[in-house]
Amino acid sequence: MTTQPSAPQLPAPDPAEGRRVFAEDRAHLFHSWAAQGAVNPIPVAGAAGRHFWDYEGKRYLDFSSQFINLNIGHAHPKVVAAIKEQADRICMIASTFANDKRGEAARLITELAPGDLNHVFFTNGGADANEHAVRMARMHTGRPKVLSTYRSYHGGTATAISLTGDPRRWANERSGSATGNIAHFFGPYLYRSHFHATTEAEESARALAHLAEVIEFEGPATIAAILLETVVGTAGILVPPPGYLAGVRALCDTYGIVFIADEVMSGFGRAGEWFAVDHWGVTPDLITFAKGVNSGYVPLGGVIVSDAIHETFREVVYPGGLTYSGHPLACAAAVATITAMKEEGIVENAARIGEDVLGPGLRELAERHPSIGEVRGLGVFWAVELVRNRETREMLVPYAAGAGQTGPVDEVVAGCKERGMWPVYNFNRIHLVPPCTITDDEARQGLEILDAALDAADKYVD
Amino acid sequence: MTTQPSAPQLPAPDPAEGRRVFAEDRAHLFHSWAAQGAVNPIPVAGAAGRHFWDYEGKRYLDFSSQFINLNIGHAHPKVVAAIKEQADRICMIASTFANDKRGEAARLITELAPGDLNHVFFTNGGADANEHAVRMARMHTGRPKVLSTYRSYHGGTATAISLTGDPRRWANERSGSATGNIAHFFGPYLYRSHFHATTEAEESARALAHLAEVIEFEGPATIAAILLETVVGTAGILVPPPGYLAGVRALCDTYGIVFIADEVMSGFGRAGEWFAVDHWGVTPDLITFAKGVNSGYVPLGGVIVSDAIHETFREVVYPGGLTYSGHPLACAAAVATITAMKEEGIVENAARIGEDVLGPGLRELAERHPSIGEVRGLGVFWAVELVRNRETREMLVPYAAGAGQTGPVDEVVAGCKERGMWPVYNFNRIHLVPPCTITDDEARQGLEILDAALDAADKYVD
Repeated sequence: MTTQPSAPQLPAPDPAEGRRVFAEDRAHLFHSWAAQGAVNPIPVAGAAGRHFWDYEGKRYLDFSSQFINLNIGHAHPKVVAAIKEQADRICMIASTFANDKRGEAARLITELAPGDLNHVFFTNGGADANEHAVRMARMHTGRPKVLSTYRSYHGGTATAISLTGDPRRWANERSGSATGNIAHFFGPYLYRSHFHATTEAEESARALAHLAEVIEFEGPATIAAILLETVVGTAGILVPPPGYLAGVRALCDTYGIVFIADEVMSGFGRAGEWFAVDHWGVTPDLITFAKGVNSGYVPLGGVIVSDAIHETFREVVYPGGLTYSGHPLACAAAVATITAMKEEGIVENAARIGEDVLGPGLRELAERHPSIGEVRGLGVFWAVELVRNRETREMLVPYAAGAGQTGPVDEVVAGCKERGMWPVYNFNRIHLVPPCTITDDEARQGLEILDAALDAADKYVD
Repeated sequence: MTTQPSAPQLPAPDPAEGRRVFAEDRAHLFHSWAAQGAVNPIPVAGAAGRHFWDYEGKRYLDFSSQFINLNIGHAHPKVVAAIKEQADRICMIASTFANDKRGEAARLITELAPGDLNHVFFTNGGADANEHAVRMARMHTGRPKVLSTYRSYHGGTATAISLTGDPRRWANERSGSATGNIAHFFGPYLYRSHFHATTEAEESARALAHLAEVIEFEGPATIAAILLETVVGTAGILVPPPGYLAGVRALCDTYGIVFIADEVMSGFGRAGEWFAVDHWGVTPDLITFAKGVNSGYVPLGGVIVSDAIHETFREVVYPGGLTYSGHPLACAAAVATITAMKEEGIVENAARIGEDVLGPGLRELAERHPSIGEVRGLGVFWAVELVRNRETREMLVPYAAGAGQTGPVDEVVAGCKERGMWPVYNFNRIHLVPPCTITDDEARQGLEILDAALDAADKYVD
């Protein structure tokens, strides 16, 4: 793989400009998922490859890929060049018309997708991709209900947040912003098995039996779709055990239920394959995507649609749409991203980094840090689960932890950031999700920083 | 105003490439709001100013602004340059961080907005802007219900499509993709008055009395928000009569209801003001925007938030968000668009074109074409309502017209396109919504083409 320089030269620091940018943010920006009074954003001055830096001259190794979207890394020259070239040609043309980059992006995506997933409906991001996939499934089946797992995140719009399992949906349910026609079930998660299983095979079989019984009691004739993150993302980086996804596929086939794979986070190299379903050879009926498709250089998401579901809407009007569907600038960025990822072996690099560096390195950390309950993942998609006690598996901070409960993990995260590595965290977990382009040395640097930061967690172990 | 050339030189036609682009679209693209078997998109080869052209060498005067979003016109050199410059700096950084262009865009937008609308939550488009505005209103008030008008469009995601009044919500209600906690009422529309009114003053007063009674019977303590397109867009380009919006504001104040103005289509110059509410001096609590904010060169939308609603979320976590909130490339395009619109007097041009050319020109057409029931609008935001009979006002094609019912308007639209002008249409209406940058000559050309095309409608008049 050809890579960008690992340690880009930083421009001269400009703290005054950083203070100005910070002040303008605090005066006028309303932030996502936050109490506005607690927002304290670092002004970012620039970024390249696997690094970004602030106006003080401090550089961070990006183990977050921002919102787990920059699979190709920051400022990839081929994607930047493609955006500039397309800006000179045509930025936006309505989806009423055909556009060369829109068609090319759709063809490239369908060529990567498994089976007969031959059509693409483009959206702005992952939330509306899930909204539209669910709408297609409901009309295709003539059934209203959708099943999803308690450990999941599917987006912030009404259908997507209602399908979300994690606590982010609760305030929306309380305030009246959720929809009906949704039921949640438990997916496989051997480390905290809902099914009292002790092996992967047992977890897979029992999770499928649970799902089968939920289907039976919800009523198969009421169920349009089962929506799953192929590898559960923010809610735990939960890799399905062998046989589970094939079992879900079989249940869907038995009952005429649409299988929707949410690959917004797991797709386009994150899990070391183009789509995470490729690990298990399973073909869903719909795949939703966003993030990695063009690494978020321009907002883009979408649904990859099977021939059978496309056929349902051959004569029947599909009752959904959006102004920016198939946005040419976003699609040009997708074409360039996918092409560069192929040319530079970036998906293969993600798989190799997982197998050779992050996986072994994290398992080695687990041997030395008693606060690590489990490490799991694949590709550049890894979770470190922190516990107070390895026997009881008590979480280092509890599920749905609020203010005042997150201290131990906050300390680990602060330790990483102080040392120049920016991770993702969620309750008792640290997620290590760098760009797919990360080098061996950078991956090892990240592990070294995490190693040092984890001492803070170890001191909470019973 | 400095403008781009009115009649750009076209490149040499390339019909073979056009056929290739068309074939790739039909092989792989799933289209919005369409039966896929009926989709027949013209491949667009390029665009500049108020024109776009196909691969056959045919040029169209754009009276659609694509999806009524290209307020600044196609390929504006200052916006293109800003996108290219920002692509070289930084395309995407998470909203966790502060970013100079994100802050500058928020400041510029709040400076244009009335009253204490001092904060911006950025989204990807108009649908999710309305989703988030409704969520803010529900949490701010602690009430679940939202009122909107039967003649409206608010977007394609679950909350937004449920709030939509027009027939696009029906299939979503039938299939289970709609939400509860919504009630619809009738807005003012003197030409087809729901209130048996004969003057604007009477229509305004009676529409307010109707709304007051709906509030009373729905229960004021259950109502979080009233959501209105300031000037109703696709559902009719309905300009509110004097006093109506002030009356809605007063009702909201009386009952502690949040007033949300949907300015996704009417904002950023479309109505000849920065925001359409500026015509009536009314300050909503939330304004939603998209489209014109950066003319859709990069997907962007958002909510402008009052100090009071911002205050609600100072200590309480706002339970919503999205990966691309405050996308730097999109925000850089917004900064360049707003700056260019100020420098070049583009909003003033839109107002003047409406007053001097489109308004008088359309009224003159109405004198000569018996199929015209009413012309109405302001700025570059005009509707021509076509009827079979001026006395009975019977629509030339009926409300919610389906296949086989749209012929007469299809003929008018085909006549416009044959002659090189691309309008918008909805049931019995032709909408004339060119870029705000349109010149007098181009506006007159559009009117001449419409004049010729309307003969097809006149022959259906009783």
